[in-house]
Amino acid sequence: MTDTAGGKPIEVAVFGAGRIGRIHAANLARQPGVRLKYVVDVNREAAAALAAQHGAQVADIDGAMGDAAIGATVICSSTDTHAELILQSAAQKKHVFCEKPVDLTLERARACADAVARAGVVCMIGFQRRFDPTFSALKARIDAGEIGTPEMLVVTSRDPGAPPVDYIRHSGGIFKDMLIHDFDIFRWILDDEADTLHATGSVLTDPAIEAAGDIDCTAVTIRTKRGRLCQINTTRRAAYGYDQRFEVLGSEGLLQAGNVRPTEVVAYSKTEVSSDVPEAFFLERYRAAYALEITHFFEAVTQGKPVRTTVADGVKALELAEAATRSWREGRTVKLDEAAR
Amino acid sequence: MTDTAGGKPIEVAVFGAGRIGRIHAANLARQPGVRLKYVVDVNREAAAALAAQHGAQVADIDGAMGDAAIGATVICSSTDTHAELILQSAAQKKHVFCEKPVDLTLERARACADAVARAGVVCMIGFQRRFDPTFSALKARIDAGEIGTPEMLVVTSRDPGAPPVDYIRHSGGIFKDMLIHDFDIFRWILDDEADTLHATGSVLTDPAIEAAGDIDCTAVTIRTKRGRLCQINTTRRAAYGYDQRFEVLGSEGLLQAGNVRPTEVVAYSKTEVSSDVPEAFFLERYRAAYALEITHFFEAVTQGKPVRTTVADGVKALELAEAATRSWREGRTVKLDEAAR
Amino acid sequence: MTDTAGGKPIEVAVFGAGRIGRIHAANLARQPGVRLKYVVDVNREAAAALAAQHGAQVADIDGAMGDAAIGATVICSSTDTHAELILQSAAQKKHVFCEKPVDLTLERARACADAVARAGVVCMIGFQRRFDPTFSALKARIDAGEIGTPEMLVVTSRDPGAPPVDYIRHSGGIFKDMLIHDFDIFRWILDDEADTLHATGSVLTDPAIEAAGDIDCTAVTIRTKRGRLCQINTTRRAAYGYDQRFEVLGSEGLLQAGNVRPTEVVAYSKTEVSSDVPEAFFLERYRAAYALEITHFFEAVTQGKPVRTTVADGVKALELAEAATRSWREGRTVKLDEAAR
Amino acid sequence: MTDTAGGKPIEVAVFGAGRIGRIHAANLARQPGVRLKYVVDVNREAAAALAAQHGAQVADIDGAMGDAAIGATVICSSTDTHAELILQSAAQKKHVFCEKPVDLTLERARACADAVARAGVVCMIGFQRRFDPTFSALKARIDAGEIGTPEMLVVTSRDPGAPPVDYIRHSGGIFKDMLIHDFDIFRWILDDEADTLHATGSVLTDPAIEAAGDIDCTAVTIRTKRGRLCQINTTRRAAYGYDQRFEVLGSEGLLQAGNVRPTEVVAYSKTEVSSDVPEAFFLERYRAAYALEITHFFEAVTQGKPVRTTVADGVKALELAEAATRSWREGRTVKLDEAAR
Repeated sequence: MTDTAGGKPIEVAVFGAGRIGRIHAANLARQPGVRLKYVVDVNREAAAALAAQHGAQVADIDGAMGDAAIGATVICSSTDTHAELILQSAAQKKHVFCEKPVDLTLERARACADAVARAGVVCMIGFQRRFDPTFSALKARIDAGEIGTPEMLVVTSRDPGAPPVDYIRHSGGIFKDMLIHDFDIFRWILDDEADTLHATGSVLTDPAIEAAGDIDCTAVTIRTKRGRLCQINTTRRAAYGYDQRFEVLGSEGLLQAGNVRPTEVVAYSKTEVSSDVPEAFFLERYRAAYALEITHFFEAVTQGKPVRTTVADGVKALELAEAATRSWREGRTVKLDEAAR
Repeated sequence: MTDTAGGKPIEVAVFGAGRIGRIHAANLARQPGVRLKYVVDVNREAAAALAAQHGAQVADIDGAMGDAAIGATVICSSTDTHAELILQSAAQKKHVFCEKPVDLTLERARACADAVARAGVVCMIGFQRRFDPTFSALKARIDAGEIGTPEMLVVTSRDPGAPPVDYIRHSGGIFKDMLIHDFDIFRWILDDEADTLHATGSVLTDPAIEAAGDIDCTAVTIRTKRGRLCQINTTRRAAYGYDQRFEVLGSEGLLQAGNVRPTEVVAYSKTEVSSDVPEAFFLERYRAAYALEITHFFEAVTQGKPVRTTVADGVKALELAEAATRSWREGRTVKLDEAAR
Repeated sequence: MTDTAGGKPIEVAVFGAGRIGRIHAANLARQPGVRLKYVVDVNREAAAALAAQHGAQVADIDGAMGDAAIGATVICSSTDTHAELILQSAAQKKHVFCEKPVDLTLERARACADAVARAGVVCMIGFQRRFDPTFSALKARIDAGEIGTPEMLVVTSRDPGAPPVDYIRHSGGIFKDMLIHDFDIFRWILDDEADTLHATGSVLTDPAIEAAGDIDCTAVTIRTKRGRLCQINTTRRAAYGYDQRFEVLGSEGLLQAGNVRPTEVVAYSKTEVSSDVPEAFFLERYRAAYALEITHFFEAVTQGKPVRTTVADGVKALELAEAATRSWREGRTVKLDEAAR
Repeated sequence: MTDTAGGKPIEVAVFGAGRIGRIHAANLARQPGVRLKYVVDVNREAAAALAAQHGAQVADIDGAMGDAAIGATVICSSTDTHAELILQSAAQKKHVFCEKPVDLTLERARACADAVARAGVVCMIGFQRRFDPTFSALKARIDAGEIGTPEMLVVTSRDPGAPPVDYIRHSGGIFKDMLIHDFDIFRWILDDEADTLHATGSVLTDPAIEAAGDIDCTAVTIRTKRGRLCQINTTRRAAYGYDQRFEVLGSEGLLQAGNVRPTEVVAYSKTEVSSDVPEAFFLERYRAAYALEITHFFEAVTQGKPVRTTVADGVKALELAEAATRSWREGRTVKLDEAAR
């Protein structure tokens, strides 16, 4: 573990120079006391471009992991590389920020959790939604008791369009790929764990998704150990864009988290009063959240504070995704204890 | 004055079987203890149709005014007949509900005020906006002190389309015909009287309106005796319909009165999120207000309570309309004491 | 069956002089061509009061059913009397408007459907929500193709407070008593039938509800024969009032039906921008719907048009309520064909 | 004028290390191809702190103006220094970005306009509102013809609280200090020039403001050369925060620009449905606008494009502020040709 006291900057290696890697790189470049040293990507050209942009160097995995000066890794590479890079980071006593999901298998995800615990390094999972200003303000208001005891949660989570079927084929399925975020929101907002889970779904947009063994819309219901209820509805294809809302009914009131609009223009025509559709997709919608989570990570690392989204949270969300997959496939309610086995 | 005690119904004569007459007739027919006896209109056919609908009879002015059993008159005939019918009602000791404006001249309006005062009859002017559920709830909240001292009022008052130019020619001008309502709102909401008034305007929709000596959009500013400010913006032609909003800034907050929509449907298309345009015109927008003002009138009559919109209010609104007309014509700020002379 | 041609009014008997009976009586009293002749209630005093208000007479069941002049019955008595009164109406060739639910058992509800079909009388069930201006405008826009093919429906249906536990004990349970409306909305909006249904729920407000064998909040998921998804969330106790919303995702967009507010006042204080909570409960929220459904019923009767909410719809909604009850009790997904057996 | 081709960065001197100076410094530090070289402030400590933050040096006016390597100046010092710094920048052939107002006197403001024109340097005035995403999207939609011909503009512009009276005493008065922005919005949105202007106002919050010869709330009406109307309402003290809205009525519709909220949380309590008050003040509300205007300035400098807010715009806004001051003081409508003399 690098000593971060005394103003010496934390040196960082970013794995993955794709869309999300570029966002994290830009955000961490803005952190005081943080220096982007390496960019690692199998696509050397992408790595070089990103490195150049921030005055960093291109490295390969061994080079980056082998450099004792590197205090933290930021993992934004493809899902199948996450676990291995977490394990290596832990072995090298480097703090880890890793994009969701930890892994597509519970076994490997749990191995990661064990490894970082043993190594005593910080490991934060990129559930950026918990850092969205609207979502985190809502959570703070629940915690302040504004709506009494939370009782029901309704999550609407809709993508503007399905990814390529080839991506879907290797995604682990809609529950691990897409609802993983919603499962994390569920645990965070209701502050409770699932007792039973029911999931169903359909293919309504593209038969190729069915051929790939997946579905494109789902309806999930969770009943918690304390009897609270959660419903999640999702689709891969909302014609009007990216729709990310939830509402929490409490014993004393209701809190809703709405979408963010690009502008506050309202237009009155002869037939309707209209405003903007929501921000187009996650890069726009969660722009502030991505910046805030990186700040949070480095504050946790430098100040020794706990992170808001731990690898244990990543494992728990994956357990729910596994349970949902099983429920959908078998057409039955799944007990979480059974799923967690 | 008819004795209304003992459950004997008040018998009523309605003058004017046009659009607004039909609304008042239907509303008063629903009042317990009220009976529509006569409908009077120069258009005998219209009178007959309305009378038939409510089991009433057709009468002429003398017949209706001469019937001692008639306890109240409801005057919805053309503006040039209002004053005469009010005077006759007063002379016959009949209570009066009269549509706005009292008259197009201050002199005659004041004569009406004097006459009803001397006769001791109730005389209510149809400023129905004061009975709109949204507007009256807002007023009640001001009165309850929710926003501290009211300081500024901004009134948006827009018609969906100009009436025929022939109507405009005999309307007394936009200030007496259209803004008379807004001047009443101003006095009611700010609970203050005008000290100075400035009005300007233009013809932007139809040159024929200019040829008729009128304008089709105006901007009025009033400064009250206590230094409070009011701005009114109006147009004869809002492409999106009937727009009736105002907002009151107080020392402790702001209250806005918004439009009413026909339905609460919200639609998300690929390009926008839309809801209904406001209710189409005054008959729809103020449907509830028309019913409530008639109830209020008959309650005042039967229970001896004061009316919310007196003939004095009608005179005051007309003074403001006169002042606005003068300000616009002469291109200068008008002092109300001067205008009232 | 009474001949309604030639302007002879349809004479009507209302069964039940309670809250909803009074509403229907007032609405039908306003219908041209309709005359309220009898009010029937075991509570003679309530019957007498309501009869007096509309110039009708008090009768008992036999008297009303035995009067051949009665062309239609309006049944608003307690649920356990519905089936018997429908059967008698059918036997007497009287048209029937009956409050939901038809009955608490499928067997008797189906017997009613058979009886009215054989008798050839109109039988309309009081699913008034289908007549709510917002809901019916939304449905018309779906039917016009505005959002393409409907794919998902999310229904939020929350009461402001639980009825007395004694009422709950005889209500047939939350699914038959409360969600019966939501099940009807589901069928109407998605224009599809359930294939599988999953229901879960909890008691979160009052342990006495659990003791009565019922729950106070539920989460239901339906998958239709065409693969469409529906989620319904309900509670007996929403602190902020009566919450009646739904949204329909289609292949081309989204339509939301929102709550109705008493006024359009918006207030800005030092800490928040606020508007009214929704209309307090069903009598306020569905005031327009109650009037429109009665008009619809008598138009159907006099003009021989089909009714929008048939007794078959009542049976179907009850089948869903039965399936939901079974799903909740047995903790498993229920196949509708099985439930319908 | 520095040659900015070939990737050599433009070196910049910032005058003023106060609140707005710090914002501009941070934003220009993020521009590619731009280097902050000097910070100048009579408060050497503030200058040093800001310089240190961005790796710049502290300089005095002569040092910064005398350095031929400085290609552009950014003037955020007190208003009474603006004109002199613009003149010096022009003399040294440096491009200028200057905060509003250009000067408190028309004579000196015009001298600045002349000087930069003769020098051929870019001179942009900091009317940042034109760069607000909501306002500029609205303007683009007007320009695209969405609402036909613009006819009326209503501007609501309210500060959350009055500045210290000592500031007010040297501010040039509310019209030059505060409404200068609104006058610029008026010209930009209606794309027209004032023909006549009427202003009135009051002191309603603090008698000390009256003693200082100023007012704290105003109502301004402008009629343009083409007969369009504009109303502006402002106050120094809106209890609920910073309120920046306007709406434009056109021949075909209406466009409204609303406030921006910190979050999209909506809360339902027992008594109201509430959302956040608007962003607290201009630093929060116009955060994006400040960044965008600086980018715009340097793009104009490096690419030789015209700036959106010229020194001529600054002069025009000042003419309106002069006219408004005269109208308010003299209690009469002012003709702009007269005011411009």
